[in-house]
Amino acid sequence: MFEDKNNPKEIENLGEFGLINHLTSQIKLKNPTSVKGVGDDAAVIAPSKNKQIVVTTDMLVEGIHFDLLYTPFKHLGYKAVTVNLSDVYAMNAVPTQITVSIAVSNKISIEALEELYAGMLLACEIYGVDLVGGDTTSSNSGLIISITAVGEAEKKEIVYRNGAKENDLICVSGDLGGAFVGLQLLEREKQIFNENPAIQPDFSGYDYVLERQLKPEPRQDVIDMFKELDVLPTSMIDISDGLSSELIHLCTQSEVGCAIYEHKIPIDPSTVIGAEELKLSPTVCALNGGEDYELLFTISLDNYEKIKDQKRVSIIGHITSNKGQYQLVSNDEVVHPLTAQGWNALQGRN
Amino acid sequence: MFEDKNNPKEIENLGEFGLINHLTSQIKLKNPTSVKGVGDDAAVIAPSKNKQIVVTTDMLVEGIHFDLLYTPFKHLGYKAVTVNLSDVYAMNAVPTQITVSIAVSNKISIEALEELYAGMLLACEIYGVDLVGGDTTSSNSGLIISITAVGEAEKKEIVYRNGAKENDLICVSGDLGGAFVGLQLLEREKQIFNENPAIQPDFSGYDYVLERQLKPEPRQDVIDMFKELDVLPTSMIDISDGLSSELIHLCTQSEVGCAIYEHKIPIDPSTVIGAEELKLSPTVCALNGGEDYELLFTISLDNYEKIKDQKRVSIIGHITSNKGQYQLVSNDEVVHPLTAQGWNALQGRN
Repeated sequence: MFEDKNNPKEIENLGEFGLINHLTSQIKLKNPTSVKGVGDDAAVIAPSKNKQIVVTTDMLVEGIHFDLLYTPFKHLGYKAVTVNLSDVYAMNAVPTQITVSIAVSNKISIEALEELYAGMLLACEIYGVDLVGGDTTSSNSGLIISITAVGEAEKKEIVYRNGAKENDLICVSGDLGGAFVGLQLLEREKQIFNENPAIQPDFSGYDYVLERQLKPEPRQDVIDMFKELDVLPTSMIDISDGLSSELIHLCTQSEVGCAIYEHKIPIDPSTVIGAEELKLSPTVCALNGGEDYELLFTISLDNYEKIKDQKRVSIIGHITSNKGQYQLVSNDEVVHPLTAQGWNALQGRN
Repeated sequence: MFEDKNNPKEIENLGEFGLINHLTSQIKLKNPTSVKGVGDDAAVIAPSKNKQIVVTTDMLVEGIHFDLLYTPFKHLGYKAVTVNLSDVYAMNAVPTQITVSIAVSNKISIEALEELYAGMLLACEIYGVDLVGGDTTSSNSGLIISITAVGEAEKKEIVYRNGAKENDLICVSGDLGGAFVGLQLLEREKQIFNENPAIQPDFSGYDYVLERQLKPEPRQDVIDMFKELDVLPTSMIDISDGLSSELIHLCTQSEVGCAIYEHKIPIDPSTVIGAEELKLSPTVCALNGGEDYELLFTISLDNYEKIKDQKRVSIIGHITSNKGQYQLVSNDEVVHPLTAQGWNALQGRN
C-alpha cells in the first residue's frame, strides 16, 4: 500500500497524443448508445428513444481529495469513476459514458498512469459504462482528475432533490461512517510511517472500513431494486459529504423539515470498533464523515410495505412540515438540531 | 492587463456550497433542451428528437495553458468556454450545455472568480449555451479549469475526422498564426516587465493578435454557413495545435495523404508584421503555432462552386491517395514534408 514512488519513468517522450493513445488504445465501446469514443473532437452518443440525459462532473485534486502515500493508483482510478457514477444513480438514472481529463506532473510514471486507467476501466466494465473521451495535460504540481459522467433515464423516472413531502420516510442504503473511519486509520498510520518508516502499518481487522474509503461502490443495486419493487423515491441524493449535510440539502430544496433517530442510523460493527479505537463517536462519523457514497432518499408512506424488509435499506426517520427544522433524536431521547457542521454540534458526545 | 494580484479576499468563509451558490445563482437556463441546471446530483438534458449528443472536455492548467500575469480572469473564463465550443462545432454540431469544474488556491480572490464566471457566462450567452453544473474545490497550487461541453446534431450531419477522400479540397476558416504571435508578444512583454516593472508594455498595433490569443471565438458562423450552402464537409477538426498537426490527424484517420500550398495559407497582415518583429516565419507560426481555433475541413470537389467565393474560407490544398505523405509546397515551389513537429523542419527559413 505504501508504494515506492521513486524512480518513475518520464512520460515526456510519449507526448500528449502518444500518452492518450497508450492509455486508451485497448478501449472497446460496449454500450449501445456509444457511437464514437476517444479520437475525434468530441465523443458521440445516441440517446435511447424518449430518454433524458443526465450529466455530472467531479474533480479530484491530489493533497485535497487523495493522498498518494496510501492510495494505490488502481484504487484511485476506480474511485474517481465510481464517485461520479454515484451521482448518476442518485438521479435514478443509468450511467452510460464517462470522459476523463487528467493533469499529470512528471513525478508520475507511465506505469502509475496505466494503473490509474486500469482502475477506471475496471469500474467502467463493472458498471457497464464506456470511457469515450478526455484530455491529458501536464501539471506543475500534483495529479488532478476530472471526470464527467453521462447517464440516461426516462423523464418520469428521474428523481430530484426537491420532491420530499411531509410524512415521507427517510431511507439510506448500506451503512454509514465507514469511509471516514477508514480515512482516519490511514492518516494515523501515515503519521506513524512518517515518524518511523520501519514500522509496518497495522490494519488487521479493518479491511471493511479501508475498502469503504479506498474503493467505494456506487449503489447500482438500489436503483435496480427500485425498478423491481416499482418504487419511485420522492427525492434522492448521494451521501458524499455526510448524512447530516445531504439531508439538509434534500430538506432545503424540498422546503420541508425532518426528524431522524440516532439508533436507526445504520453503522457497521467494524466502523463502531474503528471509531472507538480512534476515540470518535460512530454516530458523528456517520453524520459528518462523508465519502460513503450511499443513497439517501425519501419514499411516500404508501411504499413502506415494499421497502420495510429490504436488507440494503434502513428507514431512519421521516419528513416533517417544519421547514428549516432538522432534528436528530439521540439514543438518550434528546432532540439535537442537525447542522451541515453537525460534527461540531455533537463533538462533545462519545 | 498586468493586474494587481495582491490582497485577495479569502474564499474560505463562503465554503464550497456557498461559493457555488454565489457564482451560479444568477444563471437562468435558456436552451430548451436544458431541464435542470446547477443544484442537483446531475444536470438533466432532454435531447431534441432524433438528435445525437456530442460530448467534449478540456482541462486548462495555470502555468501550462495560461499565465495569470497577463491573462485577465474574464478573458480566461471566456476562452475556457470557447475552446470547448470549438470542439463541438468541429463535429458540425450545435453546443447546448457546459459543466465547469474549477480547483482554486487561496491566492485567488472572490472578485477574481466572479470575473472568471462572468467571462464564462458571457461566452454562454453569445453562443446560446447553458452552464448546467460543475464542481468547485480547493487546490494546493494553481488554478485548474475543466469544462465539458455538450452539443447535438442529427446523425447524418455529424462530421468526423476520418471521412476525407482523394481529391477533396482542404479548407480552413479565418486566418492562422495570430494566436501564437499574440502569445509571443505577451511573453516578451512579461520578460521586460519582470526585469523592470516600471516599463509599461507596448502593444500598440497588436490588438488583433492579442485578441486572437486572449479571446478566441469559435466558428459558429462557419457551421451556419454549411447549413446555408447545403455543404457537408467530408471531415473536420478544429485547429488547436497548429495546422500541420491537425492536418496530419485528419489524414491519418482518413488514411489519405495531402498537399497544401504555402501561399494559400491565410495569414492576417498584423500576424505577418508581429511575426517579423519577433523574427519568426509567419508560415511556421500558422503551421505550428496553435490556439487559432479555426476549423480545418475537407469538402468534395462537387462543392467547390459553393465554397470558392466565401470570404471566411480559404482553400489551401487537396487530399491525395498517398497515405502517410503530407506535403507543403513552399512559395519557392520546393516540396517539404509536413510533420507534427513541423516547427523544427522549417525553422531555418524566414
